[in-house]
Amino acid sequence: MYSTIRYCSACGQPVTLSVPPGDHRPRHVCLGCGTVHYSNPKLIVGALPQWQGRVLLCRRAIEPQFGKWTLPAGFMEDRETLAEAARRETLEEAGARLELEELYTVFSVPRISQVHVIYRARLLDLDFAPGEESLEVALFDLDEIPWTEIAFHTVRLTLEHYRADRQSGQWRSLVGEIPPI
Amino acid sequence: MYSTIRYCSACGQPVTLSVPPGDHRPRHVCLGCGTVHYSNPKLIVGALPQWQGRVLLCRRAIEPQFGKWTLPAGFMEDRETLAEAARRETLEEAGARLELEELYTVFSVPRISQVHVIYRARLLDLDFAPGEESLEVALFDLDEIPWTEIAFHTVRLTLEHYRADRQSGQWRSLVGEIPPI
Repeated sequence: MYSTIRYCSACGQPVTLSVPPGDHRPRHVCLGCGTVHYSNPKLIVGALPQWQGRVLLCRRAIEPQFGKWTLPAGFMEDRETLAEAARRETLEEAGARLELEELYTVFSVPRISQVHVIYRARLLDLDFAPGEESLEVALFDLDEIPWTEIAFHTVRLTLEHYRADRQSGQWRSLVGEIPPI
Repeated sequence: MYSTIRYCSACGQPVTLSVPPGDHRPRHVCLGCGTVHYSNPKLIVGALPQWQGRVLLCRRAIEPQFGKWTLPAGFMEDRETLAEAARRETLEEAGARLELEELYTVFSVPRISQVHVIYRARLLDLDFAPGEESLEVALFDLDEIPWTEIAFHTVRLTLEHYRADRQSGQWRSLVGEIPPI
């Protein structure tokens, strides 16, 4: 995922790190054709699917965090919208269809150059099943969530925020960040 | 920006388009070392800086949309947070310092594989000046905004939303998308 850029993807010649004219940061610049290769943060997009007060979680069948529980989410693809990405990931990982509600949590994760976006959503039916990347998919009451077996920090923060909102009876979107260690 | 991937950035050998095992989409895969090269949407992050009911706009000194007015915004950099990106772009393009308020508009722009994020913000002082990418920087009352000279669709939608919120007296975040033409 974070392989270093050593060669130009346009012409195949070696690149060097240098600050292009008018820029402020070192970039990978091709020594042959001069193309500047930028690297930018990636969006991870998913959903918090709800059904009669329960939330849907997926147990991961892949690394990292094999065997841990997560919300359905993954890398946004080119030419998608955020909403399409959230629905596609939920369909792929949990075989489930959603009606999306609000954009619920947005976390910057600068250590790994990612932004994690989760929609609150409503499951349309109970016809779900694990996809290739999931061992199992299940609905959890709030007091059944496997808190010590949650795969990712931003997923745990989203579930904690959801629990607080359920207790207060008011949905509030949350924008936050995970400080570099 | 959207140059096609022809060579592997890890080893310099040619790539081919094929669907990797377990994947659903064609990716650029290296014929030499097998590295899969993904392409994902990019984040454009900026701010809507306010000062006593006026908003700060920048007139672009670069293409695209040279000479048109925009909110300070640009590509989020690796290892940044959304908030850091909004403050940095405003400092670079308008020489201005901000106190950020809420994440105000989020637009998916699937045609160009981008997501545009704008914070509502408060200018900390009037000590601003155009950076290298701006011809001028100015504060506009709502009825002075140069509506026919706005550089980008998502900036115009953000300013229209801001005008409506000012009239209603209530700040509401907006999540939307720009359908492909």
